[in-house]
Amino acid sequence: MADEVKILGFAGSLRQGSLNRALLRAAQAAAPGGMSIEIFDLAPVPLYNGDVEAEGDPAGVAAFKRAIRAADGVLMVTPEYNHGVPGVMKNAVDWASRPPQDAALSGKPVGIIGASPGATGSARGQSQLRQAFEFTNSFCMPQPEVLVFRAHEKFDAEGKLTDEATAKFLGRYLEAFKAWVLRFNG
Amino acid sequence: MADEVKILGFAGSLRQGSLNRALLRAAQAAAPGGMSIEIFDLAPVPLYNGDVEAEGDPAGVAAFKRAIRAADGVLMVTPEYNHGVPGVMKNAVDWASRPPQDAALSGKPVGIIGASPGATGSARGQSQLRQAFEFTNSFCMPQPEVLVFRAHEKFDAEGKLTDEATAKFLGRYLEAFKAWVLRFNG
Amino acid sequence: MADEVKILGFAGSLRQGSLNRALLRAAQAAAPGGMSIEIFDLAPVPLYNGDVEAEGDPAGVAAFKRAIRAADGVLMVTPEYNHGVPGVMKNAVDWASRPPQDAALSGKPVGIIGASPGATGSARGQSQLRQAFEFTNSFCMPQPEVLVFRAHEKFDAEGKLTDEATAKFLGRYLEAFKAWVLRFNG
Amino acid sequence: MADEVKILGFAGSLRQGSLNRALLRAAQAAAPGGMSIEIFDLAPVPLYNGDVEAEGDPAGVAAFKRAIRAADGVLMVTPEYNHGVPGVMKNAVDWASRPPQDAALSGKPVGIIGASPGATGSARGQSQLRQAFEFTNSFCMPQPEVLVFRAHEKFDAEGKLTDEATAKFLGRYLEAFKAWVLRFNG
Repeated sequence: MADEVKILGFAGSLRQGSLNRALLRAAQAAAPGGMSIEIFDLAPVPLYNGDVEAEGDPAGVAAFKRAIRAADGVLMVTPEYNHGVPGVMKNAVDWASRPPQDAALSGKPVGIIGASPGATGSARGQSQLRQAFEFTNSFCMPQPEVLVFRAHEKFDAEGKLTDEATAKFLGRYLEAFKAWVLRFNG
Repeated sequence: MADEVKILGFAGSLRQGSLNRALLRAAQAAAPGGMSIEIFDLAPVPLYNGDVEAEGDPAGVAAFKRAIRAADGVLMVTPEYNHGVPGVMKNAVDWASRPPQDAALSGKPVGIIGASPGATGSARGQSQLRQAFEFTNSFCMPQPEVLVFRAHEKFDAEGKLTDEATAKFLGRYLEAFKAWVLRFNG
Repeated sequence: MADEVKILGFAGSLRQGSLNRALLRAAQAAAPGGMSIEIFDLAPVPLYNGDVEAEGDPAGVAAFKRAIRAADGVLMVTPEYNHGVPGVMKNAVDWASRPPQDAALSGKPVGIIGASPGATGSARGQSQLRQAFEFTNSFCMPQPEVLVFRAHEKFDAEGKLTDEATAKFLGRYLEAFKAWVLRFNG
Repeated sequence: MADEVKILGFAGSLRQGSLNRALLRAAQAAAPGGMSIEIFDLAPVPLYNGDVEAEGDPAGVAAFKRAIRAADGVLMVTPEYNHGVPGVMKNAVDWASRPPQDAALSGKPVGIIGASPGATGSARGQSQLRQAFEFTNSFCMPQPEVLVFRAHEKFDAEGKLTDEATAKFLGRYLEAFKAWVLRFNG
């Protein structure tokens, strides 16, 4: 591992004004010393199709897998749609989980956080998403949890995190995640 | 409701040779009297993007929602990917769940079946998918369950269901699903 | 069915001061005209043990199953423990799901609500509990949902529901649940 | 940590002839060199009741927590009841998760395996159980998975594991689990 812990972050929403994309940018800005977060936009990752895959990974998928492999850990910021993980997010994980043997996710430390305008703060989206990493043999950090509820009240019009309690807790989360990643990469 | 129970069926895999697509065709061929299954291919339903939606539903999404609204019930045939629902399937549900008020899925009877080459027969994929319909206020039939395990041994090279026990059970499932749909549409 | 819709209600906590027990009493008091809620205390339902069951249902279990069979529908009020359904609640369902053929839960309309001191309002507890009723072939009402978050602020020291918005929403829930039960029993 | 990896194992069934108890005994017998599995019977762990807890942990609970604390890791062998975790198993976890601060499960490596007579091999029971350990901040091993399906065909009348493929895979699982526990205790 390089001197700095390199994290790849991506959000499960493609909407530019998404609160989860805003939360990811806030995490990037709040990364503690010795840790950097690179943001990957999922837009170029198409819907999973085994026939397409058989012809070779599309460029967006190949770039996504490369970015995961190059990272020491992965940070996923997920909304909750329909009591579960968004299709956009799960679809990206479905691609990343595929062979060859040096699968991008196997043995990778994973952090999951999320935001929602409602009360649950994406809890059920996070729960479903976590289950994927049992299969991919990735190492999800269990605690602490970041569930940003009533998220629309916690960011300003430019998508900047303005709620101090959330910002402070996010900072604590990132410190814990850095230690989690080092535990597996050290 | 018309004289015949009209079901819209779709599979959560885009691969042409998919066992779940084969299972859907088997269900279509085995539909009992008074029930028909129209198959919708999810390929034209793009990844969900709220910015795109704000400009108006893409043609594939509009067609998908129209097809659901025109149906008396919906039959979903889902693989299990990474211990959960495939992104492709959840993404389609995410689009269909969106406003306007006459949301396509609200109040709609839903059946979920699935197949997998492994032992679980898509059980965990089905479990995650069902949770979406609590939110959309759709009515999922609880029993019986169709979990086609070791599915590659039960279809021939042309994707025709050749396992007699599975075919018989699928027939019983479809009779039960017809009654379930009539219960809510009668 | 009798003229009145008879509901059996039980809470997934044995603690006398439980917020979920308080929520169940609030529901009982707020039952709409033509619907009554009888409360069953789970304390006499022991831990499930197949060897004990083989000797005949213990008195508490027999009484529990009889009470479910005599009801037109079942209302469960569940906490969330450790991101899931409390063992106490699931254990009661495990007993009730057992043969003989006239299993208590099969074909029974079910409502699930819950409360928690935290932000999620028991969401993950409710999600896990719902999954049981796929197997028991019970009919869970999908919407509306009652997730009483920050519940300790919504009841007074005597366990009386004092939050007006929650009380109003609970009333709407119970009207919807009455209609749901009648749909299956009418 | 002592020279030997000490594992506490318990099964989520109280029935003497349980296939999951048999699987736990098979694991105990197959423990690799440098690892021992002590079996804890959940029978003395009563239903969770916060009023009882407030008076002090019952003897069975205190013994259970002590046994977990004394172990380097925990191995849970779970049936699937009603598409989820058995109440008996979840109830034990609910007790073990409780304060004081030196909570028994926090930071503890956890392995989950299971058996069922049906096709899914307890998959959905395992999925629900895993979710608890996000909250307790325990470290669940993601892979490999032991899902003993059609389990009644794999043990003899004395509850001895007779299926060679299962025995071999169980051995591989235990080697991996030993490495997992050492990763966190080394």
